[in-house]
Amino acid sequence: MINIAVLGYGTVGSGVVEVINTNHKSINKRAGEDIHIKYVLDLRDFPGDPVQEILVHDYEVIVNDPEVNIVVEVMGGIEPAYTFVKRALLAGKSVCTSNKALVASHGPELMELARERDINFLFEASCGGGIPIIRALNSSLTADEIDEITGILNGTTNYMLYKMSTEGCEFDAILKEAQAMGYAEADPSADVEGYDACRKIAILSSLAYGRFLNYEDIYTEGITKITPQDMEYAKELGMTIKLLGTSRKVGEGTFYAMVAPFLLSQKSPLYSVNDVFNGIFVHGNVLGDAMFYGSGAGKLPTASAVVADVVDEAKHLHRNIMTNWSSRPLHLIETDEVEGRFFVRVSAATVEEVQKIFGKVQIINLKSLPGEFAFITENMKQGEYKEKVQSLGSRVLTMIRVKD
Amino acid sequence: MINIAVLGYGTVGSGVVEVINTNHKSINKRAGEDIHIKYVLDLRDFPGDPVQEILVHDYEVIVNDPEVNIVVEVMGGIEPAYTFVKRALLAGKSVCTSNKALVASHGPELMELARERDINFLFEASCGGGIPIIRALNSSLTADEIDEITGILNGTTNYMLYKMSTEGCEFDAILKEAQAMGYAEADPSADVEGYDACRKIAILSSLAYGRFLNYEDIYTEGITKITPQDMEYAKELGMTIKLLGTSRKVGEGTFYAMVAPFLLSQKSPLYSVNDVFNGIFVHGNVLGDAMFYGSGAGKLPTASAVVADVVDEAKHLHRNIMTNWSSRPLHLIETDEVEGRFFVRVSAATVEEVQKIFGKVQIINLKSLPGEFAFITENMKQGEYKEKVQSLGSRVLTMIRVKD
Repeated sequence: MINIAVLGYGTVGSGVVEVINTNHKSINKRAGEDIHIKYVLDLRDFPGDPVQEILVHDYEVIVNDPEVNIVVEVMGGIEPAYTFVKRALLAGKSVCTSNKALVASHGPELMELARERDINFLFEASCGGGIPIIRALNSSLTADEIDEITGILNGTTNYMLYKMSTEGCEFDAILKEAQAMGYAEADPSADVEGYDACRKIAILSSLAYGRFLNYEDIYTEGITKITPQDMEYAKELGMTIKLLGTSRKVGEGTFYAMVAPFLLSQKSPLYSVNDVFNGIFVHGNVLGDAMFYGSGAGKLPTASAVVADVVDEAKHLHRNIMTNWSSRPLHLIETDEVEGRFFVRVSAATVEEVQKIFGKVQIINLKSLPGEFAFITENMKQGEYKEKVQSLGSRVLTMIRVKD
Repeated sequence: MINIAVLGYGTVGSGVVEVINTNHKSINKRAGEDIHIKYVLDLRDFPGDPVQEILVHDYEVIVNDPEVNIVVEVMGGIEPAYTFVKRALLAGKSVCTSNKALVASHGPELMELARERDINFLFEASCGGGIPIIRALNSSLTADEIDEITGILNGTTNYMLYKMSTEGCEFDAILKEAQAMGYAEADPSADVEGYDACRKIAILSSLAYGRFLNYEDIYTEGITKITPQDMEYAKELGMTIKLLGTSRKVGEGTFYAMVAPFLLSQKSPLYSVNDVFNGIFVHGNVLGDAMFYGSGAGKLPTASAVVADVVDEAKHLHRNIMTNWSSRPLHLIETDEVEGRFFVRVSAATVEEVQKIFGKVQIINLKSLPGEFAFITENMKQGEYKEKVQSLGSRVLTMIRVKD
């Protein structure tokens, strides 16, 4: 029997308990052992809920119980999660977590602690909810050198952009709707400013390239400035606008990473990832293109990923599962050095003026938007774009990067 | 150092050698050991190719060499592959293979041999080429009870259907083009008759449901009867036609499985899997919807999956990686018991006649095809459909199943 303790009985924590209860037969078969929830830690009480019988309020009970083999951290936030996880590992207990903030901040240290003790620190649910992308990067795509990861990593913003695209809603209106439906938090900044996607692309990049990418180093831009008019242009181009977390190898040991809204063409498998779904595109030097699609959030999909980690840890109780992540930092090139094409909407300007500044451009006119037009530049460094666009000053209405 | 022997220096075999040479640094790091190709077995000689130095013509050299830890079978076909693989396992060597025919026919026996010896028999490349779907089913989706797998599992037919849909080509013309491009074999029946997809859905279903599905039990229908006119109807419906291998749990311990062309709506993540790409949709009882997308064939993507198996076997040299596949047979319900909706094209019939037979139907008329129309039935058992459709006799031009 494997005893586990679940830290936090919120959405994900109660999902973990539900998944283990619902699928206990198949889970035990997969794990090769009975998975038994010995404790659930929460400050609150849940009278009437069967969990009450195994509920504890004091972490000392869990960390000091030698019978607990695996600690499941699903509280979220850095503290006390970090302290609890570290103490569990120091006590020789494997840990799995859905906590992207914890992994993005303290991942290298916690992984090293696990490695030294031949136990495991796993975090499949921290990126892409139920999508098994972490295990794919760790155990499946091992013959490849990954040179790009690009993902729709946040379901809330994907839902919002999808609605803006299909129904022409304004950002504020759709945000209120998303909040009412429980898709967006009261304070939506983690989603709409791209902070959530930023932590996720930092984790995925660290695993894919084998070096630690500090999320604080990643240029991050949210979707708050995207308008239904931008979506009209996208439609005219046969494209759509998605919030992407992306990183790419640009040379031997050099990379870039960015979170921003991008214009995406139908050629990309991410184009059709709609609604609250997530999709993660990976390019390997021998594999070519691959994409993983699924529910990026939600109680049960996330719990499914957490419990898959529990099963893996039960199967590797005293054996560290190797990952490619090291503490060596991953260095990014300056954002101004990143190359790409730029979609720009301008008013009170002429095509000739734009061509004089940018050379060859693609012009897009919309009948519904007189008095303005848009253009897409050729490929250039962002620094060069910024310099050139200055002379258009406040006549620039929007700039959105184009994903090729 | 881990010594491997590659059986067969054809497309995949030479790909395996190329991948190991190209990415040797990262592969050795992932495996935790140096992966060394000690032998390549082929009846032919390859003068001038560096492989010549390690080429052997006699399998005895490999199977009797105690230094060989892993045998990579990429010859294809049942014999001598089956004998070679079995002897390797009996000699205590782990085996990985890209050979779907071998796995679909002899998988349970070979897996059992490996299990008894604490070694491994892996076959990631046998389904979906480079798409890491087998490892996902084995190691990632372990918290779920899978209740559906539906895949576009054959790149050749997907390419052909895509071209028929976008360019309106006839089946014979596009087959010739696919053959000229090397996408289709001189004898295309394995692809176009669905035999290839059938073996793959048998393997995937066996892993997902934990029982052995014999591919010979699966109703299999190819794409030879699909016409550009069918594609016109699909377009009118906002749908497309794809060759799907699909299996689904319909009750406790009861399943159905089928390979056939299906009308697919835009709601399905498989709708956008175009060209030679493959996509595999999985539904789990807690995970919900997930989809895996990538190159289903091709030298390097397939080799990428084979080498990932080599890395996994190197990491688990004397430890069997647990799978959910058992020798217990999976029983399918009769095809006539399978429920679904049916798209039917008829000529010289009236809507009233069709409604009298089938009750409520959706009618589709195309201006470009006078003298005929199409209808989609409500949900019914296939046996019921077959009985009802009899009275339309030879006026039925096509029947295609609808995937909901």
